[in-house]
Amino acid sequence: MLQTFSDEQLKEREQQLQAQFATACDAGLSHDMTRGKPAPEQLDLAGELLSLPGLGNFRDPHNTDCRNYGGIDGLPGLKALFAAILECQAQDVIVGGSSSLTLMYDSVAQGVLFGVPGGDKPWGQQGTVRFLCPAPGYDRHFEITSHLGFELLNVDMTDEGPDMDRVEALGADPSVKGIWCVPRYSNPTGITYSKAVARRLARMTAAPDFRIFWDNAYAEHHLSEKRTPVPDILSECRDAGNPDRVLMFASTSKMTLAGSGIAAMAASAANLDDARRHLAFQTIGPDKINQLRHLAFLGDIDGLRAHMARHAEILKPKFALVQEILERDLGGKGIATWSNPAGGYFVSVDGPDGCARTVVEMAAQAGVKLTPAGAPFAYRLDPRNANIRLAPTFPPLEDIHQAMGIFTLCLELAAIRQRLGQA
Amino acid sequence: MLQTFSDEQLKEREQQLQAQFATACDAGLSHDMTRGKPAPEQLDLAGELLSLPGLGNFRDPHNTDCRNYGGIDGLPGLKALFAAILECQAQDVIVGGSSSLTLMYDSVAQGVLFGVPGGDKPWGQQGTVRFLCPAPGYDRHFEITSHLGFELLNVDMTDEGPDMDRVEALGADPSVKGIWCVPRYSNPTGITYSKAVARRLARMTAAPDFRIFWDNAYAEHHLSEKRTPVPDILSECRDAGNPDRVLMFASTSKMTLAGSGIAAMAASAANLDDARRHLAFQTIGPDKINQLRHLAFLGDIDGLRAHMARHAEILKPKFALVQEILERDLGGKGIATWSNPAGGYFVSVDGPDGCARTVVEMAAQAGVKLTPAGAPFAYRLDPRNANIRLAPTFPPLEDIHQAMGIFTLCLELAAIRQRLGQA
Repeated sequence: MLQTFSDEQLKEREQQLQAQFATACDAGLSHDMTRGKPAPEQLDLAGELLSLPGLGNFRDPHNTDCRNYGGIDGLPGLKALFAAILECQAQDVIVGGSSSLTLMYDSVAQGVLFGVPGGDKPWGQQGTVRFLCPAPGYDRHFEITSHLGFELLNVDMTDEGPDMDRVEALGADPSVKGIWCVPRYSNPTGITYSKAVARRLARMTAAPDFRIFWDNAYAEHHLSEKRTPVPDILSECRDAGNPDRVLMFASTSKMTLAGSGIAAMAASAANLDDARRHLAFQTIGPDKINQLRHLAFLGDIDGLRAHMARHAEILKPKFALVQEILERDLGGKGIATWSNPAGGYFVSVDGPDGCARTVVEMAAQAGVKLTPAGAPFAYRLDPRNANIRLAPTFPPLEDIHQAMGIFTLCLELAAIRQRLGQA
Repeated sequence: MLQTFSDEQLKEREQQLQAQFATACDAGLSHDMTRGKPAPEQLDLAGELLSLPGLGNFRDPHNTDCRNYGGIDGLPGLKALFAAILECQAQDVIVGGSSSLTLMYDSVAQGVLFGVPGGDKPWGQQGTVRFLCPAPGYDRHFEITSHLGFELLNVDMTDEGPDMDRVEALGADPSVKGIWCVPRYSNPTGITYSKAVARRLARMTAAPDFRIFWDNAYAEHHLSEKRTPVPDILSECRDAGNPDRVLMFASTSKMTLAGSGIAAMAASAANLDDARRHLAFQTIGPDKINQLRHLAFLGDIDGLRAHMARHAEILKPKFALVQEILERDLGGKGIATWSNPAGGYFVSVDGPDGCARTVVEMAAQAGVKLTPAGAPFAYRLDPRNANIRLAPTFPPLEDIHQAMGIFTLCLELAAIRQRLGQA
């Protein structure tokens, strides 16, 4: 424990670390752990997609010529596959485009322009409107809502989801129109929402046009055999008498090809009809050939899960190495805690309050790019300036090894300097 | 000329036609000429796309791994190809998604939510805003703007574009925010905009946030060797001191695969930067593998034009048959005029005022579905109720033969009944 060190000892350790840091800065490294991108080896797993659906194969099992216009809902086979991923019925699903982020952006934009079922006005005509941001969370979620005119409200994350006392207190205000949720392997803390949290989200007092944006981005992205179930929020909302409260999203971006996957949303019939009503003006239909391609490649949910097991084989050693180095360099020092996720794409580290920005800056000096400190919080501002997100999926193992060594070095050095009053 | 017929002669002819119509209704036909869809034979021309880019081919000529996230602008190779289609520079182009309709919808939606460069407020915060709809025109264009809150103003089409006296008179009102244009083989009349029209559009007095939506949907979709040049509206606007006035659009939907093509927009740097600013929240990047696939298939503008010549071989006999039957059945009767386009997807027929809806209804009774009368006008209302759009690309020749015979029969019958005061 650094807390038990004398100032002498701290200074000595600081000099050691400073020397190592200087050496690292001189080494001219260049590593990037900023974003949750799949590694080339993971993309290779979907290599067959590059020649699918194959010459002459343009009809789906329902005999639709997938080359031509039309079919806003997407192919029935894909609706069934996403229903299995999102644990709902095929009729609850619309499959569209290649990006779930776009589906989410468009859903918020439609709410701003037109309102949502149950609301009496467009969100954009209600004066100040607010959105709940469980933090640390996903920066791109939060930025959709700030860009589209919402005031963002941070809510702390716990081990089973957002702090529901706080969510209920804030959500009772009718100016609060929604909440961002990543229910499984939440970005970046890796936790999975509990059934109790889902039930409270479904039942809490909220505006009739309040929406839970339930982005199940990591539904099938396991790193271990431990599979905490994702609560059935759609049924919870239905049972609570708030059937239209939730919009669920998923995509194959981190299953097949990151930019060229398939995205889907699932919701109540009223919400889907509303989405279709707007989609009919925005598009003549999604890229059904890419849907057919994915259907041919993934087959059904069993095929998809077998494929995701191959992803896990690539990712497990990377996440294990991150844990190993965190434990080796920071274990027992009392200066940081970190997540050890059972899936997803991130490791979340909490260092000493007030140090995160410094650590990220120091790491950059030594050639290691990390996600900007604060990014996972509303307005990119971590109130404690303590959280750092690590994204170890893209770099090869040897890069992670080097990068993590530098990260822990920077974190310890920043912690000691803070203790010595030099920070 | 029907005008020279006596009432006796008209009645006799009506009885002949009524008998033919009754026979047609009993025949149980089912033909669809409602939408501008490519025929399966046209889609077959792009059959190779179904196995492209091919195993192991995921890098573009700039060595980008197209499988991963990123690259909002699209691949440089595609930017160059669309620059050739739209006759501008690659730097003027953003390539994104599979649907130019979506790019247009999103561009209007962004103007409504955020405004456009040069405007002092979002379109959605300016009270009543209006959009010019040269009619007959493309129903989906007009509906984007009515859905997003604009009042639509019909402007008559001439042989060289919209009636510019009217456009200038209406456009001077600062509540008018834009105009829909299909500059080549305009949907449905088939005319190509003249340089004089483009120049007047570029120079006319209009609000600083007025935008020309220049949808060059049929840029390469020729049916003959006659190639009327498309005016260079981007340069015209630049030269007129209104560089941000135009947004140009194109797609490969009717070149390769209708639902699975590539779409692009081109505009001034200020407009593109504005679009990128919003896109950065809406997407992590377009489907670059589909871009790579198209680059491999089409190559460059010469490859694309060779490919479009093969489309023309399929479409020419269909358009020729439409002309043949129109001339055979309606020629010299003084009851209809029609377009004979040098490209594009439609034939526009003007029958007697007040008859279009009746003709479309009668054709439907006899098993021939046509585009609803009025659809090509603002609010789907043709003030003269005279225009009917024919879409002969999708059905096979024998179906066109039957369907056209029924169409001309219905039109003549409706015209005679009107003359006899029975309509």
